[in-house]
Amino acid sequence: MSEPARLIGVGVGPGDPELLTLKALRALRDADVVAHFAKTGNASCGRAIAAGHIRHDAIELPLLYPVTTEIPRGAPAYGERIAAFYDDSAAAVAAHLDQRRSVAVICEGDPLFYGSYMHLHVRLSGRYPTEVIAGVTGMSGCWSSVGTPIAQGDDVLTVLPGTLPEDELERRIADTDAAVVMKIGRHLSKIRRALARTGRIDRAIYVERATMANALVMPLKDKHDDRAPYFALVLVPGWEAPS
Amino acid sequence: MSEPARLIGVGVGPGDPELLTLKALRALRDADVVAHFAKTGNASCGRAIAAGHIRHDAIELPLLYPVTTEIPRGAPAYGERIAAFYDDSAAAVAAHLDQRRSVAVICEGDPLFYGSYMHLHVRLSGRYPTEVIAGVTGMSGCWSSVGTPIAQGDDVLTVLPGTLPEDELERRIADTDAAVVMKIGRHLSKIRRALARTGRIDRAIYVERATMANALVMPLKDKHDDRAPYFALVLVPGWEAPS
Repeated sequence: MSEPARLIGVGVGPGDPELLTLKALRALRDADVVAHFAKTGNASCGRAIAAGHIRHDAIELPLLYPVTTEIPRGAPAYGERIAAFYDDSAAAVAAHLDQRRSVAVICEGDPLFYGSYMHLHVRLSGRYPTEVIAGVTGMSGCWSSVGTPIAQGDDVLTVLPGTLPEDELERRIADTDAAVVMKIGRHLSKIRRALARTGRIDRAIYVERATMANALVMPLKDKHDDRAPYFALVLVPGWEAPS
Repeated sequence: MSEPARLIGVGVGPGDPELLTLKALRALRDADVVAHFAKTGNASCGRAIAAGHIRHDAIELPLLYPVTTEIPRGAPAYGERIAAFYDDSAAAVAAHLDQRRSVAVICEGDPLFYGSYMHLHVRLSGRYPTEVIAGVTGMSGCWSSVGTPIAQGDDVLTVLPGTLPEDELERRIADTDAAVVMKIGRHLSKIRRALARTGRIDRAIYVERATMANALVMPLKDKHDDRAPYFALVLVPGWEAPS
């Protein structure tokens, strides 16, 4: 109890519990408190990945996103609500740190790569000893399960949110060797058109839940509807195999 | 001995042996043959990361890059020599697979993200059962050890080889929210100029051997020489912290 308590962002990888690192496993087992983000009413995917390694006597701290369906995304009130949620979450974590309890925050994929954890990190890392444990990203899980080399040599790789406007998606896809389009959801038809106009649609691969038992992987051109979850990805490999 | 032998690309992460995944560890322990790339005369970094998990009775297969200092990079003879090396390496791996020995190929970082393994993968995965085990990338190791959120929300992240021409580096850095510049080596002064002209130099972070004991991390503007190893990285975070 003499050392100051530590905040630890723990990357737990893309879904397969076997893709946890030894370091993540140890951090989860040593933590006094295990925190995880989830939508209200939904189980935390990150917690499910790490479930086998959380001590039975650990304190669990679920951080539940507010339901914001009544506020349009992009509206100032939406941003305020989300910022208040991260402030409250940071305060809840800080309360444990102030009691000298170490807090491991479970992060799907890698903590500092498009993750919710970074909102806690920027609020708390100046005040408490903090460690970040890198994890396997969702995109690495995707191209590995598909067995598709994504980029090599002097390739430029661009990571694009599917939320971008159609003309910007098109311009950026045309200007890169390899691309990963994230946050697909209701944006798939737009992404499909941008890929078609840049001549990349035949190379694009659609992936859902890459490293999990119920993974779905197919060439995008063979997917005949535009229904997709938010966390689906589209991969556009940069490298033409020499064979 | 009744199943066909399996080729496995094993991502061993950025350097810290604790960043091996459980899956990588199991694959290394189960493999009949453990292959690793290295430069002639140098120890394999990947092998050093994985050393604690290779069975004593495993067959080791070093794949040694030819010394090509007498041929200019980019010359046709250089490409031919390297292609011949990958052909020979694939044949050496295939010889073991044909003897029904499973072969784990150690890959620093993630196997299909700018890795040598992919040259074996494209030559062999059509002929032998193949599995790729995703790993923590070098760039994740870098931004985690620095504790710098790299990208969030609708950020565009661009991965750029430092080998690109200066004007192209400048154009692409100006056109992205976050950037990772890889393969620094003798290109640092050029990268520095491109960052300065895009107004990003004050945010840029220079990283060598991120997750290793002898890591070197500093704001790029505080690095007063242009000496850098090939595997150093420059991070340009996309996100301005709200605090």
